[in-house]
Amino acid sequence: MTFDFGPLLPPGTPAPAVKWTGAPRYNFTGGNNDPDGVPIDGLLAAAQSVIAREGRSLATYGLNSGPQGYRPLRDFLAAKLKRDAGMNCSADDILIVSGSLQALDLVHGALLARGDTVICERDCYEGTLNRYARLGVNVVGIPLDGGGMDIDALAKALADLKAKNIRPKFIYTIPTVQNPTATILDESRRTALLKLADDYGVPVFEDDCYADLVWTGERPPALYAMSQSSNVIHIGSFSKSIAPALRVGFIVAPWPILSRMLALKTDAGSGALEQMVLAEYCAAHFDTHLPELRRGLRAKLDTLMEALNEQFGTAAEFDVPKGGIFLWVKLPDQVDTLKLYQAALAAGVAINPGPNWSADKTHSRSRMRLCFASPSHDDIRDGAALLADVCRREFGVPARSGNIARGD
Amino acid sequence: MTFDFGPLLPPGTPAPAVKWTGAPRYNFTGGNNDPDGVPIDGLLAAAQSVIAREGRSLATYGLNSGPQGYRPLRDFLAAKLKRDAGMNCSADDILIVSGSLQALDLVHGALLARGDTVICERDCYEGTLNRYARLGVNVVGIPLDGGGMDIDALAKALADLKAKNIRPKFIYTIPTVQNPTATILDESRRTALLKLADDYGVPVFEDDCYADLVWTGERPPALYAMSQSSNVIHIGSFSKSIAPALRVGFIVAPWPILSRMLALKTDAGSGALEQMVLAEYCAAHFDTHLPELRRGLRAKLDTLMEALNEQFGTAAEFDVPKGGIFLWVKLPDQVDTLKLYQAALAAGVAINPGPNWSADKTHSRSRMRLCFASPSHDDIRDGAALLADVCRREFGVPARSGNIARGD
Repeated sequence: MTFDFGPLLPPGTPAPAVKWTGAPRYNFTGGNNDPDGVPIDGLLAAAQSVIAREGRSLATYGLNSGPQGYRPLRDFLAAKLKRDAGMNCSADDILIVSGSLQALDLVHGALLARGDTVICERDCYEGTLNRYARLGVNVVGIPLDGGGMDIDALAKALADLKAKNIRPKFIYTIPTVQNPTATILDESRRTALLKLADDYGVPVFEDDCYADLVWTGERPPALYAMSQSSNVIHIGSFSKSIAPALRVGFIVAPWPILSRMLALKTDAGSGALEQMVLAEYCAAHFDTHLPELRRGLRAKLDTLMEALNEQFGTAAEFDVPKGGIFLWVKLPDQVDTLKLYQAALAAGVAINPGPNWSADKTHSRSRMRLCFASPSHDDIRDGAALLADVCRREFGVPARSGNIARGD
Repeated sequence: MTFDFGPLLPPGTPAPAVKWTGAPRYNFTGGNNDPDGVPIDGLLAAAQSVIAREGRSLATYGLNSGPQGYRPLRDFLAAKLKRDAGMNCSADDILIVSGSLQALDLVHGALLARGDTVICERDCYEGTLNRYARLGVNVVGIPLDGGGMDIDALAKALADLKAKNIRPKFIYTIPTVQNPTATILDESRRTALLKLADDYGVPVFEDDCYADLVWTGERPPALYAMSQSSNVIHIGSFSKSIAPALRVGFIVAPWPILSRMLALKTDAGSGALEQMVLAEYCAAHFDTHLPELRRGLRAKLDTLMEALNEQFGTAAEFDVPKGGIFLWVKLPDQVDTLKLYQAALAAGVAINPGPNWSADKTHSRSRMRLCFASPSHDDIRDGAALLADVCRREFGVPARSGNIARGD
């Protein structure tokens, strides 16, 4: 007889995972990157030199660098963050983690308890929203416009919470290429956000994982850099700049709170080989790699926007992203993207339905996120056409004229 | 003014980590391995071929293998576990994780709630005991003898719990090179343990992470292999067989419970480069690497046992380990190893005090765990001598005659 584990599961256990059956034919989901953008030769050379030189240290947890992560990688980051984001931090202020998802878990572990309240952008990263749901945290979503978080709305939300005697645990923001809207919070809004955070005694949780992918290569200073009161926890990642499968991210924070997160990181360190290879590669090549990666991504974005214009016409509205790997699209009001997601998936096209990427399920009902970094130019075009067909069949939009307009 | 995170910490937050200030001069702690045992050339060649061949797939989370981990690594494991441990499992039954510590977290996450009861060996891995403490789980420790867990004591514990209407969530065991006693549970005890588990409807959690380090190269079949009822969750690791800093482990379990753990693994996959390099290396070289690694470890064990005999004489009692990287030592009753730990650390020698590695703090009060894989032969000798000096100064044992006996 086969043992039944069912009765032993604790209450609140999440649903079981379903067996993976392969990637969809046209995949516009996930933070996957451009396969052509992986610097294979550089990573190979880096692996070769660092393993030959320091391979013996793999016998030691933490690689003789202690629990905060491989020292040369932290040194690289400290210099990079200073130069690119104006951040004044040293290797001692940095904790290397297993991707920015572990960073989220550690920040949440250090600060959140069931019933707490957090503030975030109304449209927001699914991985963060899912964590809030599982942790039983109340979420206050702040509307965005083309310039990122609406600061007046933030001020009102903070005042409302204070009137109810609620001190939010933090303001979570992705200020530089926001996920999913791809907006950038400008410097004056950053100043205003930090002023509000100080006024209300609320720390800021800055998720900067797309900041390397601003098309212009120039970004505003990080909130961490601008803060007068050391109230910002900053996280970042190499997933978007080098390769997501590596699973290397980092946290920069004042020691009083970084030390709490370090105490919660009971995994005996993040993967050493990845840290070593990244440090070796990035020190020499990060700056020349990035513009090349961005050019490839920008070209794919152009292909996607063209394809949507052709296939959806005015039925697909979007602002041109300022960087990144995704496009946030508004479809006509009658489109329920949760239903579109199911129908499209059955047809071989995967999209991110808006409600999964928003704290406001009504506002995001007819929105979707399309990731463009991973599929080829051809697959972007074919996938967009197929998606339009499915959408038309299910919701009557885009109208046939969309096809006619492109010359059929 | 500097922001104060203190008032925002939730109740029960663990103490902050202390800043790392470097490794102790003589380090007999941690699961570190022999630096000479890292197969640098093999890993280097593996990295070269796999990055050149499959580097593009680093752009994709999960490497086109889905969320259970890199398929070639799971294929290698399925074949290895079949051959070495008699386990009949396929790649679909395996979940690659970020070291066996993440395996512990996932098993615990899937099965444990505050107030639950678990059974384990009385002397037990610190990382597991610490997790039980943090989770608020009641621990029933079963005494060990030279043959591993005492099965009569296990039977009595299960009966006692049943009389109190308590169904333990699992029996956690390290049956093959037990940590810290380095004993091996023989096949007849394994049969008896599984019989009890079936009789009481309690699953078995088999931690097999040292099983590759049995001196003879032969090990009993895994409990997973012997179970008649698919009631065993089996975990393992490459930390001990290849290198701990890689952070690659695995879980083998029936899908109804593996799918629950997979749902809790919200980290977007474990480090890909490590998985790729391991799969490439192990498929070709694992079997020739292991005997060489074991020879080196066995030689260091001999050095440690000789040094203890010289320095401590009869004051240090131990059984010869059947494999592994640690020695479990009994000192005279007057020695409090928690105090010895502090005094030794101040002198530059790190040891694992017994109470940290045991569910029974009284029984383990004068015991300690000494890890011998990482320090050099010279450091093992010098460290043991220094430890004896500190112990003599603090507790009056070993007697001076110990020194005289070795010819001073």
